[in-house]
Amino acid sequence: MTRLQPIYDIAQLCSQKGLSQAIVCPGSRCAPLTLAFVNHPGFNTRTISDERSAAFIATGIAQQTSTPVVLVCTSGSAAYNFAPAVAEAYYQRIPLIILTADRPTEWIDQWDGQTIQQEGLYGKHVKKSFQLPEAESHVDVSWHINRIVNEAVNLSKDFPCGPVHINVPLREPLYLQKNESIKFSESTRVIERMETHTFFSEEQANQLIADWNGFSKIAVVAGQDNYNDRLAKVLERFIRHQKVALVGDVISNVHSIADTIRYADSFLGQCPDSVKRALQPELLVTFGKSVISKNLKLFLRQNKSLKHWHIQPKGDVPDTFQSLNKVIESEPENFFELLMNTKSASEFELIKRQNFYTLWEAEEHRAKRAVGQFFEKSELHELSLLQEVITQLPARCNIHLANSMSVRYANFIGLEAGKKGIRVFANRGTSGIDGCTSTAVGHALSSEVPNFLIIGDVAFFYDRNAFWHNYALPNFRVVILNNHGGIIFNLIDGPENAPERQEFFITNQKLTAKNLCGEFGFDYLKIESARQVKNALVDFFTFDGKTKILELEGTQKVNKNAFEKFKKHIKSTYQ
Amino acid sequence: MTRLQPIYDIAQLCSQKGLSQAIVCPGSRCAPLTLAFVNHPGFNTRTISDERSAAFIATGIAQQTSTPVVLVCTSGSAAYNFAPAVAEAYYQRIPLIILTADRPTEWIDQWDGQTIQQEGLYGKHVKKSFQLPEAESHVDVSWHINRIVNEAVNLSKDFPCGPVHINVPLREPLYLQKNESIKFSESTRVIERMETHTFFSEEQANQLIADWNGFSKIAVVAGQDNYNDRLAKVLERFIRHQKVALVGDVISNVHSIADTIRYADSFLGQCPDSVKRALQPELLVTFGKSVISKNLKLFLRQNKSLKHWHIQPKGDVPDTFQSLNKVIESEPENFFELLMNTKSASEFELIKRQNFYTLWEAEEHRAKRAVGQFFEKSELHELSLLQEVITQLPARCNIHLANSMSVRYANFIGLEAGKKGIRVFANRGTSGIDGCTSTAVGHALSSEVPNFLIIGDVAFFYDRNAFWHNYALPNFRVVILNNHGGIIFNLIDGPENAPERQEFFITNQKLTAKNLCGEFGFDYLKIESARQVKNALVDFFTFDGKTKILELEGTQKVNKNAFEKFKKHIKSTYQ
Repeated sequence: MTRLQPIYDIAQLCSQKGLSQAIVCPGSRCAPLTLAFVNHPGFNTRTISDERSAAFIATGIAQQTSTPVVLVCTSGSAAYNFAPAVAEAYYQRIPLIILTADRPTEWIDQWDGQTIQQEGLYGKHVKKSFQLPEAESHVDVSWHINRIVNEAVNLSKDFPCGPVHINVPLREPLYLQKNESIKFSESTRVIERMETHTFFSEEQANQLIADWNGFSKIAVVAGQDNYNDRLAKVLERFIRHQKVALVGDVISNVHSIADTIRYADSFLGQCPDSVKRALQPELLVTFGKSVISKNLKLFLRQNKSLKHWHIQPKGDVPDTFQSLNKVIESEPENFFELLMNTKSASEFELIKRQNFYTLWEAEEHRAKRAVGQFFEKSELHELSLLQEVITQLPARCNIHLANSMSVRYANFIGLEAGKKGIRVFANRGTSGIDGCTSTAVGHALSSEVPNFLIIGDVAFFYDRNAFWHNYALPNFRVVILNNHGGIIFNLIDGPENAPERQEFFITNQKLTAKNLCGEFGFDYLKIESARQVKNALVDFFTFDGKTKILELEGTQKVNKNAFEKFKKHIKSTYQ
Repeated sequence: MTRLQPIYDIAQLCSQKGLSQAIVCPGSRCAPLTLAFVNHPGFNTRTISDERSAAFIATGIAQQTSTPVVLVCTSGSAAYNFAPAVAEAYYQRIPLIILTADRPTEWIDQWDGQTIQQEGLYGKHVKKSFQLPEAESHVDVSWHINRIVNEAVNLSKDFPCGPVHINVPLREPLYLQKNESIKFSESTRVIERMETHTFFSEEQANQLIADWNGFSKIAVVAGQDNYNDRLAKVLERFIRHQKVALVGDVISNVHSIADTIRYADSFLGQCPDSVKRALQPELLVTFGKSVISKNLKLFLRQNKSLKHWHIQPKGDVPDTFQSLNKVIESEPENFFELLMNTKSASEFELIKRQNFYTLWEAEEHRAKRAVGQFFEKSELHELSLLQEVITQLPARCNIHLANSMSVRYANFIGLEAGKKGIRVFANRGTSGIDGCTSTAVGHALSSEVPNFLIIGDVAFFYDRNAFWHNYALPNFRVVILNNHGGIIFNLIDGPENAPERQEFFITNQKLTAKNLCGEFGFDYLKIESARQVKNALVDFFTFDGKTKILELEGTQKVNKNAFEKFKKHIKSTYQ
């Protein structure tokens, strides 16, 4: 066995464990890892030069494929450039196997090039951090390496999924010697992982049902999550049968359920306190991860439910609404299935429950009407363009919502139930603007359907290296809402009266996407007036093998006014 | 006192402690810090949107001004984007005060936007990491905050200098309320730091002199450091008087000393083993940080000195040459001053010492002649263009050498003693390509002299956001050696026979700097043939208020051949 055989066999083992996608970043120290993944027939390996972007692309692929992606870099600060994406993956529960090549331990901090303290580099933002022993032919070393990689892959897939770090010290020579070639061992040992699911004992089930039947004012809130077909089907029947309000942000991927309350962000932000008091639930049931709507969060914190149950099979549970008092360790679909056929204690109770549901439904209808009316006027601004784009989205596609205004806008606009085949993604793990484009590019590289990214100019140019590679993106479309700065600082309360606002919060930036499109051979569609929208969108939604970027260049003033008009219009329905 | 007064007073205290430069990155959570630094009359505060770039720019300013720079970001992954520069600053001993705004502790990991685990985020790559208490008007809290900031600034300036992290949890409201304005306390308490210097006791001095006089084969190796005028003057007289070889890489900033051995990288890479054996020192004396020349490192590891003394006042000392056996806690200038007037035990000893020095001198002269001859031929390639640029550099300027080939090329070309007014900088702390341009931009923003950056295409486009801000750079000039990929993988041993070389190591990239120049309004000077060089350089060296980028677009083949010819030519002098 050659000295580096256990290193080459990492690719073999990962392949046997069902992984098939790797992103490698150029470097010399990582050569044995690069050679292994590039040469393994089970792997599709891509190279991305900017490690920050590479890690977000890997995150996107892992999210799209629901399978851990292998991420490789050389030693030194390269590994630190992965960190923003690693944190995003950690909080969004996306599985990654991060292999950072390192110098042999004895050379750390000896002023040789490209060494930093790589052990445990990602702190609390990985599920675990391993230090691989230095590869040598002793059989126990092979066992050690095999064991660590098995454990790392299993751990990354175990709920809650997440990134796992393996630091890999490598001694020279790093490249194959003459007449050597990469071979993979046939007998790589696999530690399988049998995944089990939770179930309720009869006693637990009876108790849950009894508790459930004690409430008539119930709200269910869905946090961010990937679309889950079984859950969607169970939920649809559940809320119809049980008459409870299901509140779903645009990033919760429950929009296909007809009766979802999808305009909560709009009406909770504008309705009078009396309405809020009427909408206060006795029982709040939540599942999934974070909620985007600040209005919803404030409403639930200020109008606390008597009880708050969170449904999650395992792992830490945050107290987002400051009212959590029961964690139910179950897959949400099992929980809702259990309660689906429950009958309320009495007809009277059922009417009470229906009455509460009707209150939510009434606000939803009011907001929906108001939103519809607002968009009837054909003024051109970011909100109206976005509404038009969302309306015209193809039946099956992925939509990526960048931080910070894009995802908020989209949540105000909402996705209709008819948009069943649309999956929504957003980097709401850390809510950073640092890798929105790269993450979406990862999805585009690994999905058959069109991928649409909605993004502001600051987030877009921050992450422009998302395109700095040689992989074609024919199924990728970007809508840039370019107001030449961080318009969010014009829209949130606080900075509006600060004289420092323009330079230090909004931080005007001058670029448009035109040059970038020229650099990468993308089609550039520019919208400057309302009458251009129609034709531009026809072109934008035509799939002819080219990447296309649609840019709306507008002033901060116009868009600030539009957004305020939007909110005022909703408010006016309460007068 | 308003609740946030202790936060505003951080700017006041930093100013009183002599700091005057801040880089703030846009965000809302950091608003109180931003407002404090922007409004403080003692601070020049700039805003940079890409945190990765911002932190390298701050690093450049701190290095240029030899004073800690304040770096501010909002909560979440923003702070992680600082990490690559923080590691570079740590290993290059550059002082930074990193203020990362955070949500109040109770909100961490509660699925609210933009929170990660910020405490201790930079691991071992900061001198210390502090957690600030949440600001409130209790007098002990003000004392606590004041104490931490005092300690942080003192620590960052204490040898070895470095980055210090303060995590700053901030509660809403973050902005000034109506009719409020930022005021700074007049009586902010300052903990001064009286810096002392080392000295040798008489006994120590006598012992050192006695030990020193026991050696006749002595080599002094200068590692990377900023130019130090007193040291340069002491060293110049020292080596002349003591007849010892002073070996200086281009990044060691000792090139102004006439007798420096500056071509060691060239001749140690090509000379026969017999020459190396003759050059083996009995005593190796080193000071400064890392050495760039791999040939020098290998020579010293394979031909170990009997004794290796490293001169450094405090802190960890690496064993770069695997022969360290005495750490002398002294400023190098004091050490050399002490030994300056020492007389060798005998005339015979002095002759022996001179003989050894002459051996080094002979190799230096041989290499210098060979290098000169090589550049007499007027072929156009990266090495020859760089030699021409270096020759024409103005008397006073800063030159920034990017990783990875640029700094190596420059070290082969060398800087003549006449280039006294030229200061050399390179990110050799971690040797990353991730922030070379941004670091140089930081220097340009804070220095009066012209700043020249020599950089390859991969490093250049990796860090293109170095320019994504609104600050003019009239004193900034870039030479891009664009061979459309990481040519280093063509030049080092190892990958040359790998079929994966082109896609996964060199990773061809297609961009040129033309579009970028258009985007930012820079002058773009393109060199495609030898006859364009002269005029292009006239334009390039004209300072007319514009930023200028000179790009040599060449093939990997031409440049690989040129570099091999260069090495062969040196080698031929031994045949």
